[in-house]
Amino acid sequence: MSSNTVSASIITIGDELLIGQVIDTNSAFIAQELNKIGVPVKRRIAVGDVWDDIWNALDEESKYSNIILITGGLGPTADDITKPLLCKYFGGKLVMDEATLQHVTYLFEHVFKRPMPLLERNKKQAEVPDVCTVLKNEKGTAPGMLFEKDGKLFFSMPGVPHEMKWLMQKHVLQIITQKFQTAFIEHRTLLTAGVGESFLAEKLVSFEANLPSNIKLAYLPNYGMVRLRLTAIGNNKEAIQSAINQSFTSLKSYVKDAMVIDEDLPMEAVVGKLLKEKNKTVATAESCTGGYIAHLLTTIAGSSDYYEGSVISYSYKVKEDSLHVPNATLTKYGAVSEETVKAMVQNVISLMKTDYGVAVSGIMGPGGETPDKPVGTVWVAVADKKKIVTRKFHFRFDRKKNIELTAVNALNLLRQLIVDNH
Amino acid sequence: MSSNTVSASIITIGDELLIGQVIDTNSAFIAQELNKIGVPVKRRIAVGDVWDDIWNALDEESKYSNIILITGGLGPTADDITKPLLCKYFGGKLVMDEATLQHVTYLFEHVFKRPMPLLERNKKQAEVPDVCTVLKNEKGTAPGMLFEKDGKLFFSMPGVPHEMKWLMQKHVLQIITQKFQTAFIEHRTLLTAGVGESFLAEKLVSFEANLPSNIKLAYLPNYGMVRLRLTAIGNNKEAIQSAINQSFTSLKSYVKDAMVIDEDLPMEAVVGKLLKEKNKTVATAESCTGGYIAHLLTTIAGSSDYYEGSVISYSYKVKEDSLHVPNATLTKYGAVSEETVKAMVQNVISLMKTDYGVAVSGIMGPGGETPDKPVGTVWVAVADKKKIVTRKFHFRFDRKKNIELTAVNALNLLRQLIVDNH
Repeated sequence: MSSNTVSASIITIGDELLIGQVIDTNSAFIAQELNKIGVPVKRRIAVGDVWDDIWNALDEESKYSNIILITGGLGPTADDITKPLLCKYFGGKLVMDEATLQHVTYLFEHVFKRPMPLLERNKKQAEVPDVCTVLKNEKGTAPGMLFEKDGKLFFSMPGVPHEMKWLMQKHVLQIITQKFQTAFIEHRTLLTAGVGESFLAEKLVSFEANLPSNIKLAYLPNYGMVRLRLTAIGNNKEAIQSAINQSFTSLKSYVKDAMVIDEDLPMEAVVGKLLKEKNKTVATAESCTGGYIAHLLTTIAGSSDYYEGSVISYSYKVKEDSLHVPNATLTKYGAVSEETVKAMVQNVISLMKTDYGVAVSGIMGPGGETPDKPVGTVWVAVADKKKIVTRKFHFRFDRKKNIELTAVNALNLLRQLIVDNH
Repeated sequence: MSSNTVSASIITIGDELLIGQVIDTNSAFIAQELNKIGVPVKRRIAVGDVWDDIWNALDEESKYSNIILITGGLGPTADDITKPLLCKYFGGKLVMDEATLQHVTYLFEHVFKRPMPLLERNKKQAEVPDVCTVLKNEKGTAPGMLFEKDGKLFFSMPGVPHEMKWLMQKHVLQIITQKFQTAFIEHRTLLTAGVGESFLAEKLVSFEANLPSNIKLAYLPNYGMVRLRLTAIGNNKEAIQSAINQSFTSLKSYVKDAMVIDEDLPMEAVVGKLLKEKNKTVATAESCTGGYIAHLLTTIAGSSDYYEGSVISYSYKVKEDSLHVPNATLTKYGAVSEETVKAMVQNVISLMKTDYGVAVSGIMGPGGETPDKPVGTVWVAVADKKKIVTRKFHFRFDRKKNIELTAVNALNLLRQLIVDNH
């Protein structure tokens, strides 16, 4: 099939998606992986565990796309109706798949180590429509299934994220690239800070006007920063890469004053990369963020190379006892003050013997505000052994978002200090 | 309109949703809020910033639902085409809305405090189709818009989460309840731990067989725990509540041995609630979770009542210097050992003068494993001043999931210790 016509739809199944009880992260993963192999996603749709709604979604999405990826609805319980539906939709009957049964038995005996014998409902997970190709799921009991109809591919995968991911990477992507001639899609993303979306767009008016027609620019604002993403699509890989590289170089020169990094990395990875390059270490002293800055830093594999540790001093007592903030400072200026974060950052650097430190103290809400310190007031200090930089922020959001904004902005201040030092 | 026919579709717009660059949290929020007012969500769909795709989505979703909620595509930059499209779709023309223009001007001058004058593209945000009702957006520059067609309501909201949330709660929900006679939907959710989905389902065979036809049971497995959710729908509020309460009481008795709490609360809120009730405090000593347990505890507003602080000891050095784990223990048993987490938990309790402590040390991957300690090996200790409970886990997932599982299971061990003490 020609690459012009390849596109995918993602169907996620489950009532929990329609009452908002879970956030759908599967679709984002599937979309990312399809993009890497040049398959644009046309539509994403979520429907409940309802026969007609699933049936209609299959009908409709196969009008839009020739690759349909389905997740969810394959569990061992009565609310999951996807497998019998797929069986009927593709005109087959359910049969026991011996290889899957052996695998399910093995999992229960050797991996889950259940003392009980295999239940009938667990055995049923090894039943598949006789019109599908079984895709072995090493990570769980529900197998993946591939159906073909009118030249279109339908993949059914369990909704458990790590099982779906394994099936995508082990089976689905390979089958798609074997069956379809896909287009080449290239993305280039850079991160900016300190300039709003409108003002960036103003800087980029002539850049956008001169973009080739097969390259698109997108603005992705988040946490007071804006990512800029170029996307190029076409059939000639070399031509696409050369065109997007040229546009990306131009883009970087347009926004050079605001650019943090010319990669699609979160702030914690940017900081981690810098520390690793410079062979420096960091510790954090956190009050209002409650460990979130430490958590962000340690989500990066290999962060033990530069991250030593933290003191989370949520109470006055811990600020005094563990971070040695003088009682006089806390009494005179309060916990949310420039003086307190200065003491916190200096002391965590000496306690943990690091090159750099970050300290934050603030009021995240909804409670805790005082007349002169409204919710969202945050003091941040970043330091090395010679220099301390402090900054006061006012965030205007809810608790969760205020914590996230504090963390990302504190890491950005640290980044600036490291860059200025070199 | 009768309650039998009310249902909603959610349309999210943006290329970033189709390349997986952002995870859609807006849909979950909107779905939750609609459920509270008795409006079931029929379908959720995501499409790119593509004229025909948005147009088709409006056509299709208005076949399924009489309330259509649209988010995204309203920013000040060229990739956002939703407003002109809505204008054409509903047969209007763009006009300047003076009240919105005043609001945008106010925001730039007094809230964003921009030194620059208002840009043309910012002014354009105040333009709206003359066929819509403007819904004032106090949180941002892009107003909400309401269109009516053939008795159906179409709401357009910006994609920025806190702006969308404000518009939902301030305008959208009220308008829906004024225009439609909605059904009553009630949910009851409980959390179980320690029993797999299949085995719970086995216990619940006769419970499910006897459920009234207007009540559904759903299994929501996550982090090795399973939430069980009952949903009842109907037109008589009292009858619905009485029926679901009766079924919920029965459900609780069926799963009483596995039940953690009979509310839809995350583990960190369950632990927080217990600590607050018992007037006890807690501190954490974290290695492999890098502050994630502290972060979970402090996402709960009011956690300063029971959470004192943490030492995140990512390196050996910090384990020795700040948590006083004896060098001999680390050398003899290693950082990932029962002996080390015992020392960590005892010392963090005495350092931070708390009633309870939690300590974790493990290998989250992808690197760091040794022949006898594969990736996913974790030691957890929870303690009060008299008693220490330790447990070894083996998680089989990626770094992010291993961190999350460690945190939730450590908090569950703490919960058990607190419950056993009282």
